[in-house]
Amino acid sequence: MDKDFLLSNETAKALFAEVKDEPIIDFHNHLNPQEIYEDKCFDNMAEVWLGGDHYKWRAMRANGVSEKLITGDGAPFDKFVAWADTVQNLIGNPLYHWTHLELQRYFGITKPLSPESAKEIWDECNSKLKQKDYSVRNLLKMQNVSVLCTTDDPADSLEWHKKIREDGFEIKVLPSFRPEKAIGIEKDEYKDYIERLADASGIDIVDVDSLLVALEKRLKFFIENGCKVSDHSLESTFFVDTTHDEVNELFKKKLSGAALDEIEAGKFRGYMLTQLGRQYYKNGIVMQLHIGAIRNNSTRFHKLIGVDAGFDSLNDFNYAPQLSALLNAMDIYGELPKTILYCLNPKDTEMLAAMAGNFCSNEEGVKGKVQLGAAWWFCDHKNGMERQIEAMSDVGLISTSVGMLTDSRSFLSFPRHELYRRILCNKIGTWVENGEYPKDMEYLKVLVKRICGTNAAEYFRF
Amino acid sequence: MDKDFLLSNETAKALFAEVKDEPIIDFHNHLNPQEIYEDKCFDNMAEVWLGGDHYKWRAMRANGVSEKLITGDGAPFDKFVAWADTVQNLIGNPLYHWTHLELQRYFGITKPLSPESAKEIWDECNSKLKQKDYSVRNLLKMQNVSVLCTTDDPADSLEWHKKIREDGFEIKVLPSFRPEKAIGIEKDEYKDYIERLADASGIDIVDVDSLLVALEKRLKFFIENGCKVSDHSLESTFFVDTTHDEVNELFKKKLSGAALDEIEAGKFRGYMLTQLGRQYYKNGIVMQLHIGAIRNNSTRFHKLIGVDAGFDSLNDFNYAPQLSALLNAMDIYGELPKTILYCLNPKDTEMLAAMAGNFCSNEEGVKGKVQLGAAWWFCDHKNGMERQIEAMSDVGLISTSVGMLTDSRSFLSFPRHELYRRILCNKIGTWVENGEYPKDMEYLKVLVKRICGTNAAEYFRF
Amino acid sequence: MDKDFLLSNETAKALFAEVKDEPIIDFHNHLNPQEIYEDKCFDNMAEVWLGGDHYKWRAMRANGVSEKLITGDGAPFDKFVAWADTVQNLIGNPLYHWTHLELQRYFGITKPLSPESAKEIWDECNSKLKQKDYSVRNLLKMQNVSVLCTTDDPADSLEWHKKIREDGFEIKVLPSFRPEKAIGIEKDEYKDYIERLADASGIDIVDVDSLLVALEKRLKFFIENGCKVSDHSLESTFFVDTTHDEVNELFKKKLSGAALDEIEAGKFRGYMLTQLGRQYYKNGIVMQLHIGAIRNNSTRFHKLIGVDAGFDSLNDFNYAPQLSALLNAMDIYGELPKTILYCLNPKDTEMLAAMAGNFCSNEEGVKGKVQLGAAWWFCDHKNGMERQIEAMSDVGLISTSVGMLTDSRSFLSFPRHELYRRILCNKIGTWVENGEYPKDMEYLKVLVKRICGTNAAEYFRF
Repeated sequence: MDKDFLLSNETAKALFAEVKDEPIIDFHNHLNPQEIYEDKCFDNMAEVWLGGDHYKWRAMRANGVSEKLITGDGAPFDKFVAWADTVQNLIGNPLYHWTHLELQRYFGITKPLSPESAKEIWDECNSKLKQKDYSVRNLLKMQNVSVLCTTDDPADSLEWHKKIREDGFEIKVLPSFRPEKAIGIEKDEYKDYIERLADASGIDIVDVDSLLVALEKRLKFFIENGCKVSDHSLESTFFVDTTHDEVNELFKKKLSGAALDEIEAGKFRGYMLTQLGRQYYKNGIVMQLHIGAIRNNSTRFHKLIGVDAGFDSLNDFNYAPQLSALLNAMDIYGELPKTILYCLNPKDTEMLAAMAGNFCSNEEGVKGKVQLGAAWWFCDHKNGMERQIEAMSDVGLISTSVGMLTDSRSFLSFPRHELYRRILCNKIGTWVENGEYPKDMEYLKVLVKRICGTNAAEYFRF
Repeated sequence: MDKDFLLSNETAKALFAEVKDEPIIDFHNHLNPQEIYEDKCFDNMAEVWLGGDHYKWRAMRANGVSEKLITGDGAPFDKFVAWADTVQNLIGNPLYHWTHLELQRYFGITKPLSPESAKEIWDECNSKLKQKDYSVRNLLKMQNVSVLCTTDDPADSLEWHKKIREDGFEIKVLPSFRPEKAIGIEKDEYKDYIERLADASGIDIVDVDSLLVALEKRLKFFIENGCKVSDHSLESTFFVDTTHDEVNELFKKKLSGAALDEIEAGKFRGYMLTQLGRQYYKNGIVMQLHIGAIRNNSTRFHKLIGVDAGFDSLNDFNYAPQLSALLNAMDIYGELPKTILYCLNPKDTEMLAAMAGNFCSNEEGVKGKVQLGAAWWFCDHKNGMERQIEAMSDVGLISTSVGMLTDSRSFLSFPRHELYRRILCNKIGTWVENGEYPKDMEYLKVLVKRICGTNAAEYFRF
Repeated sequence: MDKDFLLSNETAKALFAEVKDEPIIDFHNHLNPQEIYEDKCFDNMAEVWLGGDHYKWRAMRANGVSEKLITGDGAPFDKFVAWADTVQNLIGNPLYHWTHLELQRYFGITKPLSPESAKEIWDECNSKLKQKDYSVRNLLKMQNVSVLCTTDDPADSLEWHKKIREDGFEIKVLPSFRPEKAIGIEKDEYKDYIERLADASGIDIVDVDSLLVALEKRLKFFIENGCKVSDHSLESTFFVDTTHDEVNELFKKKLSGAALDEIEAGKFRGYMLTQLGRQYYKNGIVMQLHIGAIRNNSTRFHKLIGVDAGFDSLNDFNYAPQLSALLNAMDIYGELPKTILYCLNPKDTEMLAAMAGNFCSNEEGVKGKVQLGAAWWFCDHKNGMERQIEAMSDVGLISTSVGMLTDSRSFLSFPRHELYRRILCNKIGTWVENGEYPKDMEYLKVLVKRICGTNAAEYFRF
């Protein structure tokens, strides 16, 4: 993992030199804005690495580590050693590269993490973490982050985003609009959430129309606070043809305490997604669709530890017709927003890349209006990124891509942008050296800069 | 893109030298036979490249080009410049290679197309296009085409095919039998089509038996006019177990004006495909099955521009059991014709390659009786071709492959055969240099010639 | 195919040198224990290669060979020549490599098999086969096999396994528990099988409880005879939520002569798999799940030749939610056994690799408790093995893999382990030379030994 890591040819190296130090626009992550406002310092590497990272937890479980040393009450250093042993055995896994890039870029440590080196690395990192240089804000500045978008509920007060802005922090920390709970009509706690949303919006939510009014009011509030992008996770039936009146009845049925079946819930979800999408279009907001997770597979651990604990994976349902119908339902009004389709099951990659091409037409001149998003979660590794780049190129224009994001809960995860930039430059460099594109370095340098930042700046209007 | 384009080793180069100039058998395309008979000349590059090529239209839309400059009333040169800008941004996409191979092979232009070079290339190409050397027939001869099969409706008079033959044109221009409208019972215009077929065949079509008699009569008429191959697009439920009598009732129900549901339509389609397949077997006709398109995804543009306008993509339904049942329904009578399975969603590639192997047994000694077809449409690029070659090799015999076809509407698309030949030779050369097959050049030269032409000549009996 | 076959770099060569001669643990195959006990000698190469190998039969059919020379009454030498011609045309197919590795490793023949060399190779091999050095036991010893697990029905007497053990044969020949017939409630012959199981177990099977008691009794009998592993083939609906009482009624319904529909059968299968899995957990038995075959696709040949005759392929149903529910149903009791998930349709590879990670948690410290199995059947080739290694690495720990198995019916198939070892070492060597993992040869040598043997020894407790 030296300076030419993953760069197999001269063109790749020259292109990477061009984007290596470009600012990072991280338009989708799960960072905690309060921690940014408060400029939190971490106590030790176990807290910063293992405190909430369910990617690492899964790897440790697969390595036979006891839960006590994962999410349990084990001593922080013991957890760190268990992680060090797991890392050594993670050959081929992106966590191996992330871990060592983070050690190199933030802490200047080039020694591989292993049970043998664990103590030394633990001591060295912890002593640095205690310095103000390693506060949350400084970690972000160390990686030259210029914009980051957190993920927020419509009922959120955006208190911390406001404070960060008022504080004059040089990095833009913007909220994203994720109305998951307003759409998740299958949940027991749905009615409670609607009450919370009514409070936040000041709208009396009694039917689907007032629900949409409340959401648009919150959307506008988000926009006042810098929001440029929304987010949805589509995990089961998400579009079934219906009518406004039918959906209104379904909403009232749920509020009255009755449960909806899967088809009814699909009607409600599809209608809401369509109407919200039209709001996004009118308000210049990008729509992100994350498709295909299957969550909380272990009931036992769901009860023990809760959600986002490393018991999620990728589902395998087919959804091309539903997705086509959803995009069409907005397009038919000429009100389809810019939309990013994120793929979790690699089998769907090519389908999504091609589906995007059906809905790119727009008179506003937007490049890549509907596009395949960066390799997501279980796809976020070298193979997955290469497949994403290839699928987008094979049937569309990688040149319009808005590029990488971290989707992370960790303040140390920004070197993932570097990893993406290396893989992108290597792929393009390989095409060029293979004679598949001319060695027009002037054009190519602009191209990689676009994919690594300027496309996103234009597309989202940061 | 020099002479060794995509040929990464010496064996590959030696093999490609062997097939580079071999005649092209293009057994599936959508060329217009009238234009061949009339030996049309094109006016300008916008007409020849952008007049009907929905692949290019999609790319332009994704590049943010206004519809006016795609299918609208923009000036031809303005459209060409919009395309030039799109091409420059198509790194990694097959359109980039097609465009430049066409400029090189037909026009001798090696300069990359870009907004800067657009005017010069426009002028040079247009001046050539006006010469008789660039008429449709001469374009075909320039690429050493020996056989081409168009795609035709059973009710077609084949007027132009006959005239071309009577004219003594040295390239065989043969019709393909595509009874899509006779099977498409879900369409509103179905009944009108049946009347047209009745007229064309002189058969009074009153039930499913007379329908099949009419179709076989047309099939024999096609065969008299050189037809060797049929074609079907399977896009949704295409086989549900049924009986002759039930299908007969469904057909009458439709003729009486009632609509069929998806299962009923699936019964009708499956029965018709089975009976037509048996006719193909008896008449020595190859059956092509193109599986997995989802069409006209944008209702708005379907109404504005019509079909085949760049709003189609790949569906993701599962169909192994249906396909097995369909092939078995013919095989059980010992009347399964030679069949080519074309894959649109890459996820199905390996399933189809393996399924083909279940139905290869035949006492006629046909090699690759049922086989995976060339990489189709959204798979027609370097990755897709490599995946097709690998899937066919991994579970079957690439040595029996009937090779490449253009599936194109454009008279300039024949260098796609060259692209395939390069990729094929490179794959085989790489296996050899990697020690995975002996460097037996005598055998290997015969092998690549088989896949690039002689296999197809034998299989289709051209 | 020399000594560096498939080893493209120095690290790969050094790692392969380390595992080249390691003993083979073949924990899943279909060898006949009677032939091992009797130490059978084969008469000729047609018998040993073509007597029962449906992989080769399929390839011959696709090459246009008449059934007479495949499963028919053709002369053995004629069959061998037909195979030789097919082999020459199998470029890119694993059968090409298997055939030549077998010729090299067992017979010392390096000449490629072709119609020209067929006679010479036939004579040389047959003369060797007649020697006692080429008896079944000696063939196994020639490849340094230390453990092999056959596949056996719960009603089996294990007579031959016992005799082999009593005979003091140095290779462990262990039974595997495959209660396919006890779960296959959809079969007409189900009731007959239950009677056979009742006889074998001495349990009067009248309801689902006595069925489970009978099976556990047989499981314990198998364990007494060295069994460490079970096996299940999941081919259609395999888990539908149900209750003990409902399943009991379904079982009785079937015994009374009535048929179950697919959902009912799915309830029965899911319940049985859950309860058997819990038995495996309590008894320290590994559970193998082979998922996704579609069998006997040609009704005509099923009637003519029977099962396992080369008319099977890969299905394409989606099953992530069912599989999650099945694993969860055992996990919820804390009684999920070690489980290996085998993928037949490559599209499911990544889904299975990720699903495994949901259920790895265990306080026993088992590494890779639930894991993706080796590339199976139609995936058993270089591409398939590489995809398996990559999928397991991308979202999990290849370091915990229990590695390769033959799944074969042939005593000559053990060089497939060598092929896997080469591909594994090449993949790891390539990562290292590419800078993706440090060149820590001490660790890496242990790693490849683990994947090629010691992991399996620990996991299965051989």
